[in-house]
Formats: sequence, C-alpha cells, structure tokens
Amino acid sequence: MSIKIRQLDSTQARFKEALHAVLAFEASEDEAIESAVTRILADVKARGDAAVLDYTKRFDRVDATDVATLELPRARLEAALEGLQPKRRAALECAAARVRAYHEKQKLECGTHSWQYTEADGTVLGQKVTPLDRVGLYVPGGKAAYPSSVLMNAIPATVAGVKEIIMVVPTPDGVANDLVLAAALIGGVDRVFTIGGAQAVGALAYGTQTVPAVDKIVGPGNAYVAAAKRRVFGVVGIDMIAGPSEILVVCDGTTDPRWVAMDLFSQAEHDELAQSILLCPDADFLVRVQAAIEELLPEMPRRDVIAKSLEGRGAFVKVRDMAEACAIANDIAPEHLEVSALDAQTWAQQIRHAGAMFLGRFSSESLGDYCAGPNHVLPTSRTARFSSPLGVYDFIKRSSMIEISQEGAQTLGEIAAELAYGEGLQAHARSAEMRMK
Amino acid sequence: MSIKIRQLDSTQARFKEALHAVLAFEASEDEAIESAVTRILADVKARGDAAVLDYTKRFDRVDATDVATLELPRARLEAALEGLQPKRRAALECAAARVRAYHEKQKLECGTHSWQYTEADGTVLGQKVTPLDRVGLYVPGGKAAYPSSVLMNAIPATVAGVKEIIMVVPTPDGVANDLVLAAALIGGVDRVFTIGGAQAVGALAYGTQTVPAVDKIVGPGNAYVAAAKRRVFGVVGIDMIAGPSEILVVCDGTTDPRWVAMDLFSQAEHDELAQSILLCPDADFLVRVQAAIEELLPEMPRRDVIAKSLEGRGAFVKVRDMAEACAIANDIAPEHLEVSALDAQTWAQQIRHAGAMFLGRFSSESLGDYCAGPNHVLPTSRTARFSSPLGVYDFIKRSSMIEISQEGAQTLGEIAAELAYGEGLQAHARSAEMRMK
Repeated sequence: MSIKIRQLDSTQARFKEALHAVLAFEASEDEAIESAVTRILADVKARGDAAVLDYTKRFDRVDATDVATLELPRARLEAALEGLQPKRRAALECAAARVRAYHEKQKLECGTHSWQYTEADGTVLGQKVTPLDRVGLYVPGGKAAYPSSVLMNAIPATVAGVKEIIMVVPTPDGVANDLVLAAALIGGVDRVFTIGGAQAVGALAYGTQTVPAVDKIVGPGNAYVAAAKRRVFGVVGIDMIAGPSEILVVCDGTTDPRWVAMDLFSQAEHDELAQSILLCPDADFLVRVQAAIEELLPEMPRRDVIAKSLEGRGAFVKVRDMAEACAIANDIAPEHLEVSALDAQTWAQQIRHAGAMFLGRFSSESLGDYCAGPNHVLPTSRTARFSSPLGVYDFIKRSSMIEISQEGAQTLGEIAAELAYGEGLQAHARSAEMRMK
Repeated sequence: MSIKIRQLDSTQARFKEALHAVLAFEASEDEAIESAVTRILADVKARGDAAVLDYTKRFDRVDATDVATLELPRARLEAALEGLQPKRRAALECAAARVRAYHEKQKLECGTHSWQYTEADGTVLGQKVTPLDRVGLYVPGGKAAYPSSVLMNAIPATVAGVKEIIMVVPTPDGVANDLVLAAALIGGVDRVFTIGGAQAVGALAYGTQTVPAVDKIVGPGNAYVAAAKRRVFGVVGIDMIAGPSEILVVCDGTTDPRWVAMDLFSQAEHDELAQSILLCPDADFLVRVQAAIEELLPEMPRRDVIAKSLEGRGAFVKVRDMAEACAIANDIAPEHLEVSALDAQTWAQQIRHAGAMFLGRFSSESLGDYCAGPNHVLPTSRTARFSSPLGVYDFIKRSSMIEISQEGAQTLGEIAAELAYGEGLQAHARSAEMRMK
C-alpha cells in the first residue's frame, strides 16, 4: 500500500516556514454551531429540566418524562462492571490503580497542601488549598466513547478530594456503553445522567431542578460540546479545549523501524486530522520507516483514516543531529513526544515544551494512553508552551491568607498609604491609615 | 451625606434568591467591540508592525515611523525611577521586596519542582516543570495605570524563572506614567513597548517584525483588551478575565465601624460596578456602620463613585450568627473576604471559597493590594469556587515523563492492548504488543 508522506529537511531554504505550515491548524468557528449552542444554553438556563428533556428527545431520540429517570442507578453501573469479560475488567481495574497511584504521588509533589509562615512582627501569610466542591465530567456517546478517558478525568478529581463527580453521557437511541459505565464506577463517579450535547453542558453549568450545578466541567466532546464549554467558561471552570491529537517521534535510528511506524499509526488512527511527525538524523532510517509503513498499513483495520492522516498532516523531517531534533521539538511543542533513542533521559534535558515525553524505545505512547499512570489529557496545538497535563492541581484552588498583626499594620500601612495616594485611591490610603496609631 | 444601601436579612423569605440577584453580574458582550477587535487582530497578524503603527497613530495619536522607536530604552525606565520622590520610591521598592519574598516562599511550597519515581521493574514516571519562555504584560494607560499591578504581574513571572517579560503600555498623546515605568524596572520587566489596545495584544500573541511573540499574556485592560485576550487564547495562554472588584466583610461587631466603612469604600472607589457587601449578626452594628458611612463619605474625593457603587451593588446582610455568615461567604465566593472578628483564624477554617482572606481587624484589604506580599490579582464573580490568585504556578508548566523499562513493557503492554482492542484502536494495541517478547 503506497503512501506519500511529506518530506522535509532542516537544511532546506525556509525550513522553519515549511514546518510551521505543516503544524498550522485553525479550529474553524462554525456560525451555525455557535448560534445553536447559544440558543440551547439560554433555554436550559431558563427552563431547566424541561429544556433538557426536549433536546434529549430531539437529538438522542430518548423520550423521558422527567430528568430523574435519565439518571442511572448505581446498580446499573455495578451490572455493567459485573458483565465485563474477566480479562477486560482486570485490565480496567489495573489501569485505574496505576493512574490513581501516579496521581497520589502527584498530589504529594505538586504542592496541593495549605501553607503559611509568620513574620517577625506576628503577621501571618500563606495560602489555603481546597478541592473543588463538585465537578462535571462530560463523556461522549457512541463511537468516541473511551473508558480510558473516564478514568483519566475522574481519578485526579477524586485524588484531589472533590466531594462529588457528576458524569453526563448521551445514549443515542437509549444505547449505553457498558465499558464506559464500568469505568465510571471504578473511577469514582458519584452520579451518571444519560444526557449529552450542549444541553448537558448547560445543565451542569447552571444546574436544573434535577441536575446539580457544578464548579468545573472536564472531558472531551464534539464541536457542540466544545462550543458550549467555551461559552459557560466563567460561570464554571473548564479544562482545555483539545485540538487534534499529535505525536512527534524523535529517533536516533536505533529503534526497530516497524515500532516507529506503528507508533505513528497509533496517533493517525484517531482521526484524519491527527498529526504524526518523525524527526531523525539518519536519512536511511527514514526510508526504512517508510517501507515499514507500507508493509504494516494493509493489516490495520483503520488503514483509511491512518493513510489520510499521514498524507494530509504527517511529515518526515531529516535533521542534522539529535541536538537539532530537540530544538525543533521545542518549537513544535507536541502533545506526545517519543524520544526513541539511546540516552533518552539526556536528550530529555534539552526539551522544554511537550505535553508528555516517552523516553526510550519501550515507551510507546499507547502505554501512556491507558495504563502507565500519567494522565492522557494533554495540551495540543503547541499549547504545551504554556499549559500542562490534566492533574490533581486542576481540581484544587487556592485562597491567599493574610493576617496582619497590629505592629505589622503600622509599617505596612505607611507603605500602602503612600502608594495608594500615588494611584489616586484615597479610601485605600485612609483604610490603611485608620489602623495606624 | 445620606446613602441608601440594600438591606437583607438571612431569615427573610427567598433570601438566597435575593442575595443571588445582588451578586448577578453578566459581562455584556458588545458586538461592536467584538467585531472591531476581530478586525484589528487579523490585521496585526497579517501586516505586523505596519498595522501596529497605524492603530497606534489612530487610537493613541502617536505617530511613529517604526515600532522600534516605540520601545523605551532602559535609560528611560531608570530616569523614571531616579525621578521619583524618595518616599514614594522607597515604598515601591519595599512593596516589591515583600511581594517577591512571598512568591519565593510560594515557589517552594507550591510544587514547582520536577519529580520522578522509579518502580520495581525500572519504569520511571514523573513530571518535568519548566518556566514559560516569554510572557507579555499588558498595562493600561491613563488613569487606570497602577504601578502596584505591574509589580503583582511581573514578580511571580520572574520568580518562576520566566526568561523574558515584554510589557506593553499605551501612551495616549505620548504621555507616559513614570510610576508605572519605575515599577516595570523594579519588577524585572525586560522590554517595554508603548503600544496598547487590541493591537498590542495581537502583537504579543502573533509577534511582529519588532515585537517578539510571547507564550502567555497577563494583566488587566479595558473591554477591547479583554475581548482581544479572549480571542487569542489558545495561540497563547492568558490569565483570567476579571470582572468588577468585590469585597465581602464578615464582621462579628467587634471592629470599629469606621474601619469597616472605609474598607467598604476602598472597594467601591474603584468603579461604580464594584461590589461591597457586609455580613453581620449584630443589627445594631449595621446601623453604626451606616452612620459611619454617612459621616465619612463627604470627605472622600471619589465620593460620587463610592455612592453609586454602594447604592447600586452594595448590601448589608443581617445574619443569624457567624457560622451562617461563613456559609453565606462560601456561596458568595468573594474576591476579597475580610473576616473582621475575634478568632478570625477559627472562622477561616469554615471558608472554602475566597480569592483572599484578610483575617482580623488589622488586615485591611488595602494592605493586601499593595504590600502584604500575596498577589492582588484574584478571581472575581464567584470564580474563586474553581480558580486561584495569580501566582508562580501560572508561569510554569509541566510535562509528564514516562520511561518504561523492557520488563514494564511486558506487563503494561498486555493491559494497554486489552483496553485498546476494547476501544477499537488496533494500532494502539499493536504498538504495545510489538514491544512484548
């Protein structure tokens, strides 16, 4: 199966422009989607349950008399879990245990504790850390329903200490995905409503008579869900809006080219817009990966998606050396970075921007997607320059703590009043001065 | 000076609805602003410096031949600092030192270090923490130019280890604010361009021939700046978009009512939309604060703004007791919370949601605005339920680190493949299986 992947060379003229042209991805804003979502959200805000029922009937063809009947009883989740094949259930539970262990460790390391210190004059300063009260988890219905995604979103919230997790998942024509429901139970979800789309996002953001309002909404969704999340941001917190998934493989030429080919496939099979890029200083190795791709592609069930993704958005880049490959990786700031090389930890020291780094030839991205432990919700579209994997830190927030002693009020009052007068804010100045003897 | 402030009582019928009606604030989306900003951003993206020059001439009446001449040389900042009155300079430097000391402590406590651990089979997991490469700091021109805000935005970035901070500040008619320029120097800003508005946000987000592209834009601005920041979010990171400033004073009746009155003023003087609310179990104390307000208001230079803010958005709430006051405070989730009471630390244990807590009668909010040390950029409009004060953690980001050993690839590969087949992602499964013996 012949496949034509874009070839770049870092020594070519205007290489950086050519590379950025490959990376460029502009999420199109669809006016029809935006206005439909605006209408649905306003309706859910105004009419609550009644609006949710109307849209669920219209979009999912589920005709319920009240929203309470759309909530799944715990016994339904337990039945889903009991019904799984033992091997699959064990895999899900083992993955959950590893993800939980990693996030427990993260909780200890990432400064999720309150802290304070006392100054010489008795003034106390610090921060109080509190988990969010209630979190909403959006889970897509149908084909894109990934139980691994349920675990990756729910577990950091439970580890952070969130009191209640409300999951919403549409069930078009009433069909639920048992693997997803089992994952909800294992992941620590408290309540599940079988609603979806912008109406579910609106219900979580504003609350209805039956669905409780949450403080933050996380989880992936289609263009309607993404648009709805953007619009309710501010009323509630949201996680990032993900772009197409990406992998960048930096290889020194020592890995089996078939492994590299399959790693590129594993990203490309997600979506025609997914992006797989390979950087290597060894031109001959690039040829061998190309051959492996052509050999392996015909046996892949999702070969059509893979081929479109690789031909449309993929690239092979011949670089001068591994140091240059690391510099280019920083410019790309990929969601997933495989450093498939000897001495991977050494090269990793040169990487500043990546959602997740997979080091060494045994660290295939797919292990990270399911069960290595770290979160698979990662920054896409170069946003790894300024954002982080989903983590425990996304489910806590901080309050500054300021207790000024009487003595402290004397010295600080003088400074504050001087600056407040400089800014023309006299009440600020007087408020400080009144505490001075 | 008589002033009519809304009076609520927690025992009244439908109290919660009445309270939420007072809190309700919907940032209006102005179509004219949105479309002007969209046009300006597209123009700056396409034409770079030339567009920035055109808009700066049109909006700030500054006619420059190239953007380089709009950059202030370091000597200009030094001259601004040298030119300050010694007392004001000392206050600014002392405030900066305290803010820096607090954020240094925060850096240690908030988990801004990289970490990793090794499992029994040699698999290494963790996170690498890296400061952002380059940050843009927006500073408003004219009246709303606050040097304290320059310090509060720049210092956490420098403490985080950000390599370069680019400040933009409009100078309408060529007039610069020396206190702001001095604060830039003290705060560790690297370069200053005298540009503003949506064109400055665009220049920072996309980069021009002269202005370097940044990774995140922070700092307050008018409606055009806020709209522009929203639009470039994703290309770069942004801080929160702040709503009107708020103070909630929870008082047990033991504080001088004049202090409380002035604290309410210090919020109200910012803006007619600013919100000042007082909760107290002592009805008589509320009467005394009202009297203090009427006594003190006439002497305030900004009395008209204060009166409009208090009458339009202020409220006095009579509560049953301090425990109920804390519960209501959690519902309000205020930007600034003063617990002006005996045993303030004890009451603070009941507070989950507040941007900053000011504990005890000597902790006036104005001290926190300038020099206590904690950041004065805080979540508004109930977003303290899910977000935090600006901090060192906003200028770092994390990359997951995953190095799977050959042994680890055997056990993890089996789990990952099982789940990948369950999700219909065969390339993921094969990628894991290829690493298995």
